[in-house]
Amino acid sequence: MKAAIIGGTGYGSIELVRLINKHPYMEIGSVVSNSQAGFSFSDVYPHLSNSIVQPLETFNVDRLSEENDIVFFATPSGISSKLVPKLIEKGKKCVDLSGDFRLRNAEEYESWYKHSPADEKYINQATYGLSEIYAEKIKTSNLIANPGCYPTASTLGLLPILKTNLADYESIIIDAKSGVSGAGRGLSLTAHYAEINENLKAYKLGAHQHIPEIEQVLQDELGNPITITFTTHLVPMTRGIMCTIYVKLKENINTNEIHHIYSEFYKNKPFVRVRPEGTIPATKEVCGSNYCDIGLHVDPRTNRLTIVSVIDNLVKGAAGQAIQNVNIMNGWAEQTGLTDIPMYP
Amino acid sequence: MKAAIIGGTGYGSIELVRLINKHPYMEIGSVVSNSQAGFSFSDVYPHLSNSIVQPLETFNVDRLSEENDIVFFATPSGISSKLVPKLIEKGKKCVDLSGDFRLRNAEEYESWYKHSPADEKYINQATYGLSEIYAEKIKTSNLIANPGCYPTASTLGLLPILKTNLADYESIIIDAKSGVSGAGRGLSLTAHYAEINENLKAYKLGAHQHIPEIEQVLQDELGNPITITFTTHLVPMTRGIMCTIYVKLKENINTNEIHHIYSEFYKNKPFVRVRPEGTIPATKEVCGSNYCDIGLHVDPRTNRLTIVSVIDNLVKGAAGQAIQNVNIMNGWAEQTGLTDIPMYP
Amino acid sequence: MKAAIIGGTGYGSIELVRLINKHPYMEIGSVVSNSQAGFSFSDVYPHLSNSIVQPLETFNVDRLSEENDIVFFATPSGISSKLVPKLIEKGKKCVDLSGDFRLRNAEEYESWYKHSPADEKYINQATYGLSEIYAEKIKTSNLIANPGCYPTASTLGLLPILKTNLADYESIIIDAKSGVSGAGRGLSLTAHYAEINENLKAYKLGAHQHIPEIEQVLQDELGNPITITFTTHLVPMTRGIMCTIYVKLKENINTNEIHHIYSEFYKNKPFVRVRPEGTIPATKEVCGSNYCDIGLHVDPRTNRLTIVSVIDNLVKGAAGQAIQNVNIMNGWAEQTGLTDIPMYP
Amino acid sequence: MKAAIIGGTGYGSIELVRLINKHPYMEIGSVVSNSQAGFSFSDVYPHLSNSIVQPLETFNVDRLSEENDIVFFATPSGISSKLVPKLIEKGKKCVDLSGDFRLRNAEEYESWYKHSPADEKYINQATYGLSEIYAEKIKTSNLIANPGCYPTASTLGLLPILKTNLADYESIIIDAKSGVSGAGRGLSLTAHYAEINENLKAYKLGAHQHIPEIEQVLQDELGNPITITFTTHLVPMTRGIMCTIYVKLKENINTNEIHHIYSEFYKNKPFVRVRPEGTIPATKEVCGSNYCDIGLHVDPRTNRLTIVSVIDNLVKGAAGQAIQNVNIMNGWAEQTGLTDIPMYP
Repeated sequence: MKAAIIGGTGYGSIELVRLINKHPYMEIGSVVSNSQAGFSFSDVYPHLSNSIVQPLETFNVDRLSEENDIVFFATPSGISSKLVPKLIEKGKKCVDLSGDFRLRNAEEYESWYKHSPADEKYINQATYGLSEIYAEKIKTSNLIANPGCYPTASTLGLLPILKTNLADYESIIIDAKSGVSGAGRGLSLTAHYAEINENLKAYKLGAHQHIPEIEQVLQDELGNPITITFTTHLVPMTRGIMCTIYVKLKENINTNEIHHIYSEFYKNKPFVRVRPEGTIPATKEVCGSNYCDIGLHVDPRTNRLTIVSVIDNLVKGAAGQAIQNVNIMNGWAEQTGLTDIPMYP
Repeated sequence: MKAAIIGGTGYGSIELVRLINKHPYMEIGSVVSNSQAGFSFSDVYPHLSNSIVQPLETFNVDRLSEENDIVFFATPSGISSKLVPKLIEKGKKCVDLSGDFRLRNAEEYESWYKHSPADEKYINQATYGLSEIYAEKIKTSNLIANPGCYPTASTLGLLPILKTNLADYESIIIDAKSGVSGAGRGLSLTAHYAEINENLKAYKLGAHQHIPEIEQVLQDELGNPITITFTTHLVPMTRGIMCTIYVKLKENINTNEIHHIYSEFYKNKPFVRVRPEGTIPATKEVCGSNYCDIGLHVDPRTNRLTIVSVIDNLVKGAAGQAIQNVNIMNGWAEQTGLTDIPMYP
Repeated sequence: MKAAIIGGTGYGSIELVRLINKHPYMEIGSVVSNSQAGFSFSDVYPHLSNSIVQPLETFNVDRLSEENDIVFFATPSGISSKLVPKLIEKGKKCVDLSGDFRLRNAEEYESWYKHSPADEKYINQATYGLSEIYAEKIKTSNLIANPGCYPTASTLGLLPILKTNLADYESIIIDAKSGVSGAGRGLSLTAHYAEINENLKAYKLGAHQHIPEIEQVLQDELGNPITITFTTHLVPMTRGIMCTIYVKLKENINTNEIHHIYSEFYKNKPFVRVRPEGTIPATKEVCGSNYCDIGLHVDPRTNRLTIVSVIDNLVKGAAGQAIQNVNIMNGWAEQTGLTDIPMYP
Repeated sequence: MKAAIIGGTGYGSIELVRLINKHPYMEIGSVVSNSQAGFSFSDVYPHLSNSIVQPLETFNVDRLSEENDIVFFATPSGISSKLVPKLIEKGKKCVDLSGDFRLRNAEEYESWYKHSPADEKYINQATYGLSEIYAEKIKTSNLIANPGCYPTASTLGLLPILKTNLADYESIIIDAKSGVSGAGRGLSLTAHYAEINENLKAYKLGAHQHIPEIEQVLQDELGNPITITFTTHLVPMTRGIMCTIYVKLKENINTNEIHHIYSEFYKNKPFVRVRPEGTIPATKEVCGSNYCDIGLHVDPRTNRLTIVSVIDNLVKGAAGQAIQNVNIMNGWAEQTGLTDIPMYP
């Protein structure tokens, strides 16, 4: 199966290249980068020398449709909303790694993203690609809105406890920390080495566009509107997200019982590793892999549950989950091409 | 005035050396390191070449008392509890950077520190050296229990709001993040470069020995027992602590009003910089300095206050606050020797 | 084919695990760690959860021989010299990642390694596993002395020019820089985070045990004793080695001609990428992969050639080259299991 | 004495601010930043809050001359060549941290810097501010061309041996490594966090504009044209430069004798610390200070001397040496305001 990648020179895009390269049933058909069209991929990214021979090309619906079976969008927000419909009309399956098809409420999209939203018709066709939760819908979908990095780590960490009666829904706080690759390859002082190295920053307090995305998933799953407190931090490392999540429990219940709830919830989900009681995951332990690792701790003094959820933001938080969704869409085993052990150290 | 440092080859100790070196009224009399006695300081720390000529010596009460006016302890817990009394009996003033004299409850000390506590007589003499809050007591004290790094950032961030009627005391969550120098110079896998670099770890969930210290300060100031949720993380950087603190507000109140409360609270405190509304401090912005910078944000959707408090763990969180306390004890201006601009970048 | 790994909890060992896991013709039979025997591998390395189920075991020749076809040693120097003979006698093929079988001169081994050397009989059986140069011998060998990380980058960078008549043999200087994972997982101040982060150190000037190894390869290939100047530096990063190599040229020759020499030399070697003229490789561009990337520059002002050779010290400098050698020994395609694109960023 | 800083928001500029703030005889009069004029300095650099109250202003010769005694230029190349003459004509002393007045040969300037050179009249007035070597000339100069970071570390490392008869002048190789702050605050992929972190790059092989600067100093001091090989590398850290320098010796001479030559050469130079035989400096050991630390090693096998010279690129390599020069110009003790111990760790 041939895959096209649109948005060819961002980090999401080269992570797709890395993963598709080792996928047994997919290969790269086209890579589109309007800004670098005509160059070879290894001119822009020398690490790809010898691996990728396709030149970067401009966006051409006809050619893309002819030469590819599936199209990944790894573009900034506001682009796939315009391009995806053209490919859907050509009968192509699309997986969009940007936020353009994630929020069903058009006004909400506009207020958080400051762009016009996608056409409602296509938003309605889109399936939110949180693989562990929506596999059934993903199977039959031709347009996947691949989840954001923070929402993936947050919702996988939260859903098992929220789907019991044990949690106080008004108490949810997500203290999220991300490596710098999440900011992409675009130049900015907030990704300038000397400003970020040996530094820890909080940013966008209460203002991150992933807030409505997380709240939408929680509402979908729980049936009620949920309002969260969500804080994001920039950590001096390249890859990795950790969400430290706090939930007040309505009953006395110990870590062991909570652990049991999570283990049951994820028992057939190969990419979620609920860690043994007493251990807490670190971001490096999932580096380069599609795992989401979860650690749990109930403080009996406050009856508050702390959930620590870690992913590689570029894999389970982007390209890896996109591949996982394509596996599900095609009826392939969910782990196909994604069985690598994390790179440690 | 001559100052002795006990615990000569740890990071707290060399930060004291760095700061005393630029203090106009103090100079280094003796440096004690039992493990390295006889060596010159610059054998162990070449960066001190040309600056410090004293050889490292063993602990000798008589000699220390004769040659020094004030004694700093930068020792692991369990040591100053035994040595401080000897120097107090000789009439020396002591500042203890370890945790040995911080907790007034001996049982609590034993349960969190796993050592025998200090003699009650000396614990009762000790003043908790949170300079901005206890300056009056510090002035007349001969034994300062210098606060821990996390408690300094946490209590300075929390007290202004807790001393109003606005806060829900049961809602306090401190999500704390520290650079690796806080773990000291002792070898351990948790400070091993390849394990920590490009990695973010949560540790000691609900089990950090700074929890009872923070709760004791809050109770002292508020009159009621307070139970907090406290999580610590290790960030891949050398210096810096950030505490992201969450407090539920009992009334609707906006960021501007909260900002006013904090600005008033700290208006005569030169080392606390309450940041302008809309800005949040980063750890590098206080690096090498004695500042505690505080940013504030109220999320009107949840009526929850987020406080971001940053310090340099080795300065305001250790050696710098120790110097500040000595300044207060001696009636010198609080900023004496501590006026350096943070080192940026 | 079943593979055993001796030295189970070092970084070389877990990199072997990572690579064998994705090899189509090998799987892990046994992992030996005397210090951690009885534990599961994921207790020591949580990133291996779900991937490796074998418990760590003690060294037992009979059991190892029965259950495995090939044995990798990723042990500190001085251990495989004693254990390899036992397995060779059982008819097993061995690949030794330590330095025990690399130097043919026993006295030289003793003077650089400060251990007794291996038995001469086995040293004579060993083939130096620099895959690009000694593939023919490797094919028929049952004991591979896998090259050191610095020697791999150095000799691959040097041999093409030295095998012409153009180089002044007395002029060779190798300025080598390594990430910290090369120092292994053993605790030491030279791998302590706060000492290494934001720091650049030179170490072991003229005293590194890889000097005689490099000189032995050069002498073998050139027929004359060659003496090099070799300096090693520790760079604040986890993975990667760069050797910046200086060679005086005896004739006027430009970069383009040198580039042609190198391209010819490595034209059928899939893991050596000679970079286009005008570009110089960076270590991250080979991260996680078995590539050795080489950049070339002749300064016409001094008629000196600068060669920049980079590898991932844990892959081409250790575990990856070991797998490459096993591929060659078994007549499999050299790239089997080693086709991953480097992980970038 | 009032000091103006032109180029107000670069890293050289804020390092000048940090150092002038602790200088007993200087204070900041004006800070010029055309791009940020009107803003307060702490809007751009929050770490300066409470310390610097002056608003950033535009360049105005009259006002600058009236309000300041000395003017520092921390501007990109091509700017001070135009502005310095105006201030010199007003009778002001100028210290230029850019390269505009360093090269005496106008053609050479143009060929390496790709700008028009400064007016010859002012180039002739300028004194090259390598403080340890040219103090006598600096005393009476009104225009200092403050040396580049690499040239400072390189020439201080080289001159003692070159001024003997022992060195082969054609053998000089400087393998230089720098932290990323040397690239300044301007946005570029080569200072983008995810591209630089966990990466080591060589750059500008044989093409760095500091080459003619180093060669000019060597020629001035030795009387002959000298051609060097000079390679620069970017190291994933913020501050610090290390030059590893190789020189072939014409006679057999051991490390101890070389050490004696260096110690004598720098015996009255407080900022150059020649390290004891057998020890080699690391960059962190001078961090934040004006020291240049030098380690020495002769390899008897090759009769080649390796010199390791380290500085903080923003201090001895820029702002610190500028202050040192002002001290010399004013007849103040050379160390005035520069006595801080390096910040470690």
